[in-house]
Amino acid sequence: MLKSGSIRAAVVGATGYAGAELVRLLAGHSDVTITAITSRQYAGVPFNQVYPAVGTAVSLVCETFAPEPICERADIVFTALPHKLPMSIVPELLDRGVRVVDLSADFRFSDVAAYERHYQAHTAKELCKKSVYGLCEVYGEKIKKADLVGNPGCYPTSVLLPLIPLARAGLVDTKMIIVDAKSGVSGAGRSPSLGVHFCEVNESFKAYKVAAHRHAPEMEEILGEAAGTPVCLTFVPHLVPMTRGMLSTIYVNPEQAVSEQDVRQCLADYYKGRPFVRLCGEGAFPETRFVRGTNFCDIGVRLDTHANRLILVSAIDNLVKGAAGQAVQNMNLMFGVDEGRGLDMIPFPV
Amino acid sequence: MLKSGSIRAAVVGATGYAGAELVRLLAGHSDVTITAITSRQYAGVPFNQVYPAVGTAVSLVCETFAPEPICERADIVFTALPHKLPMSIVPELLDRGVRVVDLSADFRFSDVAAYERHYQAHTAKELCKKSVYGLCEVYGEKIKKADLVGNPGCYPTSVLLPLIPLARAGLVDTKMIIVDAKSGVSGAGRSPSLGVHFCEVNESFKAYKVAAHRHAPEMEEILGEAAGTPVCLTFVPHLVPMTRGMLSTIYVNPEQAVSEQDVRQCLADYYKGRPFVRLCGEGAFPETRFVRGTNFCDIGVRLDTHANRLILVSAIDNLVKGAAGQAVQNMNLMFGVDEGRGLDMIPFPV
Amino acid sequence: MLKSGSIRAAVVGATGYAGAELVRLLAGHSDVTITAITSRQYAGVPFNQVYPAVGTAVSLVCETFAPEPICERADIVFTALPHKLPMSIVPELLDRGVRVVDLSADFRFSDVAAYERHYQAHTAKELCKKSVYGLCEVYGEKIKKADLVGNPGCYPTSVLLPLIPLARAGLVDTKMIIVDAKSGVSGAGRSPSLGVHFCEVNESFKAYKVAAHRHAPEMEEILGEAAGTPVCLTFVPHLVPMTRGMLSTIYVNPEQAVSEQDVRQCLADYYKGRPFVRLCGEGAFPETRFVRGTNFCDIGVRLDTHANRLILVSAIDNLVKGAAGQAVQNMNLMFGVDEGRGLDMIPFPV
Amino acid sequence: MLKSGSIRAAVVGATGYAGAELVRLLAGHSDVTITAITSRQYAGVPFNQVYPAVGTAVSLVCETFAPEPICERADIVFTALPHKLPMSIVPELLDRGVRVVDLSADFRFSDVAAYERHYQAHTAKELCKKSVYGLCEVYGEKIKKADLVGNPGCYPTSVLLPLIPLARAGLVDTKMIIVDAKSGVSGAGRSPSLGVHFCEVNESFKAYKVAAHRHAPEMEEILGEAAGTPVCLTFVPHLVPMTRGMLSTIYVNPEQAVSEQDVRQCLADYYKGRPFVRLCGEGAFPETRFVRGTNFCDIGVRLDTHANRLILVSAIDNLVKGAAGQAVQNMNLMFGVDEGRGLDMIPFPV
Repeated sequence: MLKSGSIRAAVVGATGYAGAELVRLLAGHSDVTITAITSRQYAGVPFNQVYPAVGTAVSLVCETFAPEPICERADIVFTALPHKLPMSIVPELLDRGVRVVDLSADFRFSDVAAYERHYQAHTAKELCKKSVYGLCEVYGEKIKKADLVGNPGCYPTSVLLPLIPLARAGLVDTKMIIVDAKSGVSGAGRSPSLGVHFCEVNESFKAYKVAAHRHAPEMEEILGEAAGTPVCLTFVPHLVPMTRGMLSTIYVNPEQAVSEQDVRQCLADYYKGRPFVRLCGEGAFPETRFVRGTNFCDIGVRLDTHANRLILVSAIDNLVKGAAGQAVQNMNLMFGVDEGRGLDMIPFPV
Repeated sequence: MLKSGSIRAAVVGATGYAGAELVRLLAGHSDVTITAITSRQYAGVPFNQVYPAVGTAVSLVCETFAPEPICERADIVFTALPHKLPMSIVPELLDRGVRVVDLSADFRFSDVAAYERHYQAHTAKELCKKSVYGLCEVYGEKIKKADLVGNPGCYPTSVLLPLIPLARAGLVDTKMIIVDAKSGVSGAGRSPSLGVHFCEVNESFKAYKVAAHRHAPEMEEILGEAAGTPVCLTFVPHLVPMTRGMLSTIYVNPEQAVSEQDVRQCLADYYKGRPFVRLCGEGAFPETRFVRGTNFCDIGVRLDTHANRLILVSAIDNLVKGAAGQAVQNMNLMFGVDEGRGLDMIPFPV
Repeated sequence: MLKSGSIRAAVVGATGYAGAELVRLLAGHSDVTITAITSRQYAGVPFNQVYPAVGTAVSLVCETFAPEPICERADIVFTALPHKLPMSIVPELLDRGVRVVDLSADFRFSDVAAYERHYQAHTAKELCKKSVYGLCEVYGEKIKKADLVGNPGCYPTSVLLPLIPLARAGLVDTKMIIVDAKSGVSGAGRSPSLGVHFCEVNESFKAYKVAAHRHAPEMEEILGEAAGTPVCLTFVPHLVPMTRGMLSTIYVNPEQAVSEQDVRQCLADYYKGRPFVRLCGEGAFPETRFVRGTNFCDIGVRLDTHANRLILVSAIDNLVKGAAGQAVQNMNLMFGVDEGRGLDMIPFPV
Repeated sequence: MLKSGSIRAAVVGATGYAGAELVRLLAGHSDVTITAITSRQYAGVPFNQVYPAVGTAVSLVCETFAPEPICERADIVFTALPHKLPMSIVPELLDRGVRVVDLSADFRFSDVAAYERHYQAHTAKELCKKSVYGLCEVYGEKIKKADLVGNPGCYPTSVLLPLIPLARAGLVDTKMIIVDAKSGVSGAGRSPSLGVHFCEVNESFKAYKVAAHRHAPEMEEILGEAAGTPVCLTFVPHLVPMTRGMLSTIYVNPEQAVSEQDVRQCLADYYKGRPFVRLCGEGAFPETRFVRGTNFCDIGVRLDTHANRLILVSAIDNLVKGAAGQAVQNMNLMFGVDEGRGLDMIPFPV
């Protein structure tokens, strides 16, 4: 057993929403000591001035990022930065012997060409081979040994968890997958813009990046690996006037003679013993409030016999299982700690 | 031209949200005088005590419904009641010579068996043949001559307007239609229940009646008529934490060699000269706030060439084009008034 | 009677929330033609691209502001700009013979020194004497003859309407006035900032500029004039997680032997015949939703006999009676049109 | 030190919002085992069916209340019931040797006549003398020895914490106190009614029970005790469109020559070493989101030198420090556990 607080963790980019959520979770994790947090915008400012909620529970001051002083104090570094920045700093972090969980897209793709098609030129390609995709319930064994984890995107997490077991078992036709996903506003990050202005979001609902979101190729790569064959999906994200929460409604054609019970059993078997995937009972479906602030992914199943279509509904908190919570779960796996450690707060009733 | 205020209108069930929205629209309609409003729950109470917002703009007192006194004062009666009640009172209303727009499902189906399968036994079957489905942009000519109009459901309106022209033109494969729809809370009506409690809805998002909502057969009947062949669709409604607004994201397979431009042109041609259907420009998509309080249906189009799937996104205000606004538009058609009369308020910028 | 559409109006700063609300109201005003709208940020862009909701109802393109071309086309110019800009352009507008309603603070103060203490040096001081404070129900006679109107602030409007009649009648002690006011987020304007980020506002409530808001001196000047003696008040504004609406709760000591009925009667007498001030019945109080989108100011009254304190609660829509609606009402008065013209839309029930 | 989980706790009325919040906090409390939960409405139903969020973290089934079987299994019983019910069951609970924290008003008043004036006849008057008012930071010593604690109301908690130290120190004039308070909707409880219907609350703000709320006499009694003289205050609560959170803005006249620094120092001294009262820095004020889900009471101070008025702003989570959290804090004091035990979750950044 680890000594209490013995994992020394640093958060790079600690004042964005995912970074701050990491600070929340790590500060409450009995095996972790946060030793450094960085922020370009708030360098020199105490974290609890940026986020007064935390009060004396977090007394760290934001620093400017510099590899050496960070690595000296850390066993693990979480990089919670916009895409493109991590690939410029992660190589040096690894060289200095720390382990890294990166929350950007930079190390999620093993197919570098796909990354470059949807993002930009990759400047640390060699690391893409070493990096492990941090979907804990699926790649747990590899994650345990990884030095570098590419933490999954929020949308992919909500889509892959219900689909992977079914794709692996051959229960669904992976040529026709439609994902209609809905996210709370915190997924857009903390930078002010007209698109996150309260009055432009409140009392409204919209689709955005219709069939043009960069999380689609991420899903296709991982799902294709599970299915053993290329996957092509249609993905339309939407914005919900709420802060936290993500719900994906997934439409897929079942293979012949597959029953709702078969699907349910397949998922139950696959996630047996894993604390964070919860299967809803028959006729029940997830709501984002049931997972708010938690690392759960709730999944509901219904076979529409009228149209012979399988409908999967999954809900996560985009900042927790969709970002910081899964990052901590990855850390737990990497350091041999129980995977639920620090993620076991009782959910709010309301 | 009609004399100002010369259409005498009565609203039966005026204190529910759809009924009250009817009162709002009719009170501002230059060709209409509201002569009677009824409410079981608030009989004897001035409408502006139930809805203080309207103030002196509406000075009517709610009455108990009785056919004779209502019909004496009305040329048209709007029945804004729960399913099942209208079929017990509409026959007598028609017998007394008034015209009726019914906002329930009771007179939407020409296939009575379908109605009975999804609702209950029908006690005024003979009227189902006379009744016209009140989707104004599609059945306008029939509506003009109708004595009884079955005002469409909110979900069907948002789904049929984008799909009917394409189905008629044979541009889409009507065997694979998936409708992922999202509604504001006012669609659930004004009766208190746990499901509409602020704290159970706020900051959450959920699917409900997954592939089990009674608006699906309504869509299938009308769409099948347009396509000339039976249609089978998958329909999943969701609840958005907002008061007004409905957005439907529709996934359908295009027939071979159909381009996004073909779809756009087909819709533009079909709705040419019709004021309430607005086509979004290329790359633009509707948001429910753009149609809030209005009778518009905004439609966005995208052909996902990656998966060869056509995506249609439509937005309406569920209480206006999805209920009371379309009812008024039906009345306008029935009485030979410009179809936009009383529905031309400038939308809010925010 | 004016010929329909015969008042030519220009809106300078048309794409902020108050400016856009002006466009909404003027576009629906039967005596007005909007002839020009300006926007620095969106020059050259059609207004309905910035605000897709309005669609074809507004077909103007935003221009860069220039006095000559604007004045040639306008009888009245509305300046909906941040403080300080109007005083640099209004003199030239007036010189060119147009009448002006300015929505900023620049022309609200007759005491220039007070303005300069709370804002900045005034560069058009001579106009402050000519300018009339545009609180329509109070300064109506002066407004009719004014060439320049300083449109009141939203908070002052909500506070002055309930207090002025009582101050004039000597029913209250103007030495002890406490105003606890609450505003929706649109009052902060459309410019993106962390303070209006959805996630920083949603599901939260806060006080801001506690006893340090610049609307307090504006209230004190006008109220002092009504009372005939200097007034000193404590003003604390708060932010409500909603888009539109403002509610002020005002605590004041009644003079001896004043009853709730005296207060009610005083207000009823003062606002007799004025369509936009609505007095709530005994025991009833305003809610911001009752005035949403309207030019109403609803007022509730309660004498707390236990503590011998008078409580006034007023509600307005901050963008309408608190800004654009009152500006249109001012225009109506200035041009001899019925003061309610263009402001008579029926309120939403929900 | 207590053995882990050694306090056996029962929650009577566990499915209301305060009861469910108690279950959340107790389930995460290392020194507590929940041994029974009761619910009239949901008797026989697993708690996690009523609140699916909690999942397997709470596996209890709701029972019908009966004193004997509850008391056999409990060291402490929390009664989270509507006013009037507790006084009929608490006597028997105490007779059976358990200790009780009652969340209703029944045991908050030592002046039984005041209770009877504002609520109803009291049927367990003798217990009112034994009962201790559970404002932990003020009555901690008495609470430690109490068998029966009357847990304070949410509004009183938010008002008394900032005022009591000042009243005790004689820094303020207790004859002129105005409390303008704002609450989230969960304070109204979980029972459906039109007043908590999403569409009636959302996008609106209102005052209610203006100077007529029963929490006022509760504040007056406790504050009068602190001041050593009767206190008379004006109290106006308001409803905010959010689920959790309460903010009170308190206006009071400072005694002569009292500075903002004096007030700040007085509060700092009084709450020294107490973990749940946090004083905001100069110029900073609380926001309800900073305390959401936590047991904190944040307090901001400003002396309005212009009007010589002291303004105190306090924020709590109405379900935590305003109900269940304080109840657990009371239990901690009663059982000699650190008062913050089970209440130390890190707050959400957003």
